[in-house]
Amino acid sequence: MARVIVDIMPKPEILDPQGKAVQGALPRLGFGQFQAVRQGKRFELEVTGPATAEVLAAAHQAAVTLLSNPVIEDVVSVRAEPEPSLEDPTTQGPAA
Amino acid sequence: MARVIVDIMPKPEILDPQGKAVQGALPRLGFGQFQAVRQGKRFELEVTGPATAEVLAAAHQAAVTLLSNPVIEDVVSVRAEPEPSLEDPTTQGPAA
Repeated sequence: MARVIVDIMPKPEILDPQGKAVQGALPRLGFGQFQAVRQGKRFELEVTGPATAEVLAAAHQAAVTLLSNPVIEDVVSVRAEPEPSLEDPTTQGPAA
Repeated sequence: MARVIVDIMPKPEILDPQGKAVQGALPRLGFGQFQAVRQGKRFELEVTGPATAEVLAAAHQAAVTLLSNPVIEDVVSVRAEPEPSLEDPTTQGPAA
């Protein structure tokens, strides 16, 4: 079991109203050190087997065609995240 | 100039309708290898100076109090991302 992480952010030239709203609220809550905020999306895609190059390529294709809107968003990262090892002693050893 | 990345995901026990919608659409588009999808949020917070431990602590506090809804979401990562070409390429952000 592996997990693929896909990060999608609004393009730099696109107005990001959600990020602007957070940016406006932060100083009122005492967080004045942050000059700019942008809000994007993070997807976790689970696959049964390992995150092979083919799986990552498929995830990137899915990110471009379904997960993001290429007119206003960029796919900034597609990467594998190994599943955290479980405490169950019967699952010791490398994941199949 | 540094950038702090905050990743927020719905808690595992919380239904994620956006992720379910994506999960249902993926096989129809030929991406049958992904068994589960969850959708969360990714924030980029920009600070003028370096991403010190104090900045990361403030970002984590902001993530808990403003960026996420602690009832239904988990802050899964708060980490520094070095600005490209402005940082020593050997500099690595602290592990989350």
